[in-house]
Amino acid sequence: MELQRPIRHVKIAKDMSVSQLVDSFSGCAFGAGRLSEAVDIYREMITDSECTKFFGLAGAMVPAGMRQIVSDLIRDKDIDILVTTGANLVHDIIESLGLHHYKGTDAVDDIQLKHNAVNRIYDVFLPEQHFSEFEEKLQSIFKEIPDKLSITQLLSHIGAKLDDDDSILKSAYDMQVPVYCPAIQDSVIGLQAWLYKQTKPLNVDVFDDMRNLIDRCYEAKRAGVMIVGGGVPKNFILQSMLVTPRSFDYAIQLTMDRPETGGLSGATLDEARSWGKVGENARCVTVYSDATITLPIIVAAAKVTRE
Amino acid sequence: MELQRPIRHVKIAKDMSVSQLVDSFSGCAFGAGRLSEAVDIYREMITDSECTKFFGLAGAMVPAGMRQIVSDLIRDKDIDILVTTGANLVHDIIESLGLHHYKGTDAVDDIQLKHNAVNRIYDVFLPEQHFSEFEEKLQSIFKEIPDKLSITQLLSHIGAKLDDDDSILKSAYDMQVPVYCPAIQDSVIGLQAWLYKQTKPLNVDVFDDMRNLIDRCYEAKRAGVMIVGGGVPKNFILQSMLVTPRSFDYAIQLTMDRPETGGLSGATLDEARSWGKVGENARCVTVYSDATITLPIIVAAAKVTRE
Amino acid sequence: MELQRPIRHVKIAKDMSVSQLVDSFSGCAFGAGRLSEAVDIYREMITDSECTKFFGLAGAMVPAGMRQIVSDLIRDKDIDILVTTGANLVHDIIESLGLHHYKGTDAVDDIQLKHNAVNRIYDVFLPEQHFSEFEEKLQSIFKEIPDKLSITQLLSHIGAKLDDDDSILKSAYDMQVPVYCPAIQDSVIGLQAWLYKQTKPLNVDVFDDMRNLIDRCYEAKRAGVMIVGGGVPKNFILQSMLVTPRSFDYAIQLTMDRPETGGLSGATLDEARSWGKVGENARCVTVYSDATITLPIIVAAAKVTRE
Amino acid sequence: MELQRPIRHVKIAKDMSVSQLVDSFSGCAFGAGRLSEAVDIYREMITDSECTKFFGLAGAMVPAGMRQIVSDLIRDKDIDILVTTGANLVHDIIESLGLHHYKGTDAVDDIQLKHNAVNRIYDVFLPEQHFSEFEEKLQSIFKEIPDKLSITQLLSHIGAKLDDDDSILKSAYDMQVPVYCPAIQDSVIGLQAWLYKQTKPLNVDVFDDMRNLIDRCYEAKRAGVMIVGGGVPKNFILQSMLVTPRSFDYAIQLTMDRPETGGLSGATLDEARSWGKVGENARCVTVYSDATITLPIIVAAAKVTRE
Repeated sequence: MELQRPIRHVKIAKDMSVSQLVDSFSGCAFGAGRLSEAVDIYREMITDSECTKFFGLAGAMVPAGMRQIVSDLIRDKDIDILVTTGANLVHDIIESLGLHHYKGTDAVDDIQLKHNAVNRIYDVFLPEQHFSEFEEKLQSIFKEIPDKLSITQLLSHIGAKLDDDDSILKSAYDMQVPVYCPAIQDSVIGLQAWLYKQTKPLNVDVFDDMRNLIDRCYEAKRAGVMIVGGGVPKNFILQSMLVTPRSFDYAIQLTMDRPETGGLSGATLDEARSWGKVGENARCVTVYSDATITLPIIVAAAKVTRE
Repeated sequence: MELQRPIRHVKIAKDMSVSQLVDSFSGCAFGAGRLSEAVDIYREMITDSECTKFFGLAGAMVPAGMRQIVSDLIRDKDIDILVTTGANLVHDIIESLGLHHYKGTDAVDDIQLKHNAVNRIYDVFLPEQHFSEFEEKLQSIFKEIPDKLSITQLLSHIGAKLDDDDSILKSAYDMQVPVYCPAIQDSVIGLQAWLYKQTKPLNVDVFDDMRNLIDRCYEAKRAGVMIVGGGVPKNFILQSMLVTPRSFDYAIQLTMDRPETGGLSGATLDEARSWGKVGENARCVTVYSDATITLPIIVAAAKVTRE
Repeated sequence: MELQRPIRHVKIAKDMSVSQLVDSFSGCAFGAGRLSEAVDIYREMITDSECTKFFGLAGAMVPAGMRQIVSDLIRDKDIDILVTTGANLVHDIIESLGLHHYKGTDAVDDIQLKHNAVNRIYDVFLPEQHFSEFEEKLQSIFKEIPDKLSITQLLSHIGAKLDDDDSILKSAYDMQVPVYCPAIQDSVIGLQAWLYKQTKPLNVDVFDDMRNLIDRCYEAKRAGVMIVGGGVPKNFILQSMLVTPRSFDYAIQLTMDRPETGGLSGATLDEARSWGKVGENARCVTVYSDATITLPIIVAAAKVTRE
Repeated sequence: MELQRPIRHVKIAKDMSVSQLVDSFSGCAFGAGRLSEAVDIYREMITDSECTKFFGLAGAMVPAGMRQIVSDLIRDKDIDILVTTGANLVHDIIESLGLHHYKGTDAVDDIQLKHNAVNRIYDVFLPEQHFSEFEEKLQSIFKEIPDKLSITQLLSHIGAKLDDDDSILKSAYDMQVPVYCPAIQDSVIGLQAWLYKQTKPLNVDVFDDMRNLIDRCYEAKRAGVMIVGGGVPKNFILQSMLVTPRSFDYAIQLTMDRPETGGLSGATLDEARSWGKVGENARCVTVYSDATITLPIIVAAAKVTRE
């Protein structure tokens, strides 16, 4: 029972940088201690030139205002492989059309919103009308793509057609970062594909993407993953490593989900060690706090090291 | 401001039935009140002969011991359409091979588990060896299926080959209940498909299933949904209704996720009204409590009405 | 690594009793497994004739409709010592005056409620007017009590004056069960005492109650505790045992709070072992689910054994 | 339905200050948006010279490393009235004796810890031996205090005897900031008082403190409150305002607790409006995230304004 690291209390200084604040968390416990550890792991991971960097993005992070962080990480080469949800990509495309999400409130009459043709995502408002422009854009893109392609290829085609350097899909296209989206049909992109397929051929195979992703796992000298919010992206990244002799060397998870319900989203990263997804000696930490707060902090605090 | 429904306090009687207990919750508030309302809605929904009954199953419900509840609901015709995760189906198939999950503990050394070739799902233990038998079974099934099919067709083929009436997939096959699984590649079924495709042709289109699901939404005179645990199943069900002029008339959500993080899993059902997924006059309720407790209670309490 | 207890899947039967349902949870994991274990421990604890039974009651359980469960447990001699919050006692007294709490909704304009003189406790509504009758009652009781007494004595005096056998305080008075309420000033009882003390002498010592409570800990051959909702009651019970050579032999905790924030309310019962509050060989379990659901289930399921 | 505030996406810059980061959150939603609003309210509150500033401190914030933040706020006159738990004061006194808390881990065998005489608070370790020195200190202080005093007076006497300017109690003593602690008996301070009272007279009245606290509420031109972690401090502060014609003008709550269980800790600040504790036009916000992360951020971001 070692008692070697006394708790050191945070002291707030004027004009403190994010990096300094998080460094002062290194002597703290609970969430502050975990956040400090996450930054430490993230700094090591992104400066490890032999590390393939995976990024899992779930939750409505784009509507919340986290889009540019992700696209900047891609352009800064801090993301080699992105796995995300259809929803985040839909909202990324909407913004790339110059259409906005709006700050609203969760204390609202949703039936009134419906009458006003405004959709709600917690405290974000989105005019239904945006989806008409989205439809027009996507149908025009669909017309120009091959009849048969994989999900990542489909997303790459879409990215190529977006005229917005802040877009996640456009940045991924520019930087040749593959974007995986296993449940793409579970999104308005999927609904547009359903519409398109009523009259035109389109064949996107469910399993085609797996080979490339698993190959990247095989080839990685070392591998690290930042998991924002659990869900399909978390499991898809971790399971791809499972079939290789390797495992993740760095893993960070930002979530409010809890382990006790047994779902994968809230599962600890230690649980992933029992499967061999995360390595025995891997550095890993979960920060149980709102990811719209912790992700920006980690990226800001790690930026010092990076550049 | 109506003050017409006084809180009536629960009185516990000896040998009380589940149904009686939940009925006594009808005068209560907080979780007890919500659970009572969920039962009331569920009773109405499953006895509404013109209602198409959707069921979204996320979270590790099969490993936890909830498999038979779902397969019985299918055989009792209380589920018309099932949308679930690959993981639940993997664990369903494993059990159908006569292989067990085991009660373990979450207070365990996961590296030790790894050395013993035991995988952990919170407090459930699963021998890695089971996946070898799973692989053998799945590869033998893949050999006999068409080169080109949809996800629901693939799952139907698997269900047909399972020799276990308690299996969810087998029950769905027997009862002609379609099983949707948008992110099927995000599971060990996906990994087996990746393996199979290294030497054999297999083409499963991502979007092919959407037409049938959306058609069922169009055709439904009334529609109800039981959502266990959020995730892709929740959104895939709700968005399919979105493109129709209809909306859900009944909706129940069992989850521990919370609204404040903005993710879809924790989103309130009122939020879904703003999108038109849930109707303005629909009856809906979310029960914020462990679904391995609340799902059995609701099904037990509703069974009285049903039969 | 023992793999000896296969998961057994719940099968719902018609007219199932609560006891049967929970017994069927014994082969399950996650919350269902924990609930089954809680019932098992609670059955052993309340039938252990040499066990002193503590009960910690926090959260707004009385407004929610859980009042009679607690008073019945007292009258059934399943609670020897009650530790609770001032709020629960305030709402118990209000109900004993024939005044009701009302089912409301959390989706409401609180400013409108304020204008209508209705107070809200999540989805419970309470007319402000009730507090006038409460004031009248309490001031009349204060007039007849000694100038100097302990908190438990004060609560006993109040209990004696309530004309309602369903009241927690009245039941405790009748059954000579001491009621501890460390933060009694943090309640409308406290506000009434402040009012009374503006003109009359009243001296209630903060620490006087501790001796009797700690004596009960010393004297207990065995000790068990049911902790509903954490807070001051949880810690006050556990710390009283801390100063004795003994520790709790049975401990059950029903809460939605989580360990990761480091607060005592969400702390695991294992953590309490490190302090010696809960014994090394004690049986203990935490059920992470809404206590307005789990408490009635446990009491109903244990009633079979008890009588 | 106004759609006037487009979501503006966070852009991370190198060497960004905490203040700049939080300002960039002002265009965001979910937790980031709430945190930005909290900083905005806090800046207005602490620079409002006519505002009486209350601070509620629950949860194990001192063991986690948040002690100096609180003592600095007191010395900077950003806290006029402190309401906290006995536990935070106990750990403050321990640190003031030069005794440390230590970073540990929550993945540990608590029985082993017990054998090593180490107490655990989530991932903080504390040698039992520290409590012996704590006892010696407290008993020596008790000997010198009046037989009869209030809780705040008792705490003031303790603060006066601590030789550590970083101590919360010492800082409060120096700055004449009253420290309220309604459930003081629910702490090791309480256990020491019980010990002392076995041989010496000590009378600390439960209700004596209320007058001064309520007087401060009456006198306040404007009033603001920062609530960390709920519990007794939250309610004690809010209820004291309840008996006055006034209400809080500013209110910030940092918590992971959730509203749905109906407990006061997780209750929204809007609910407090229905009671008249928080004013109709008051600015208030709850940040649902780990307070060991959000409190330092808010204080750091507000410091720019303050000085």
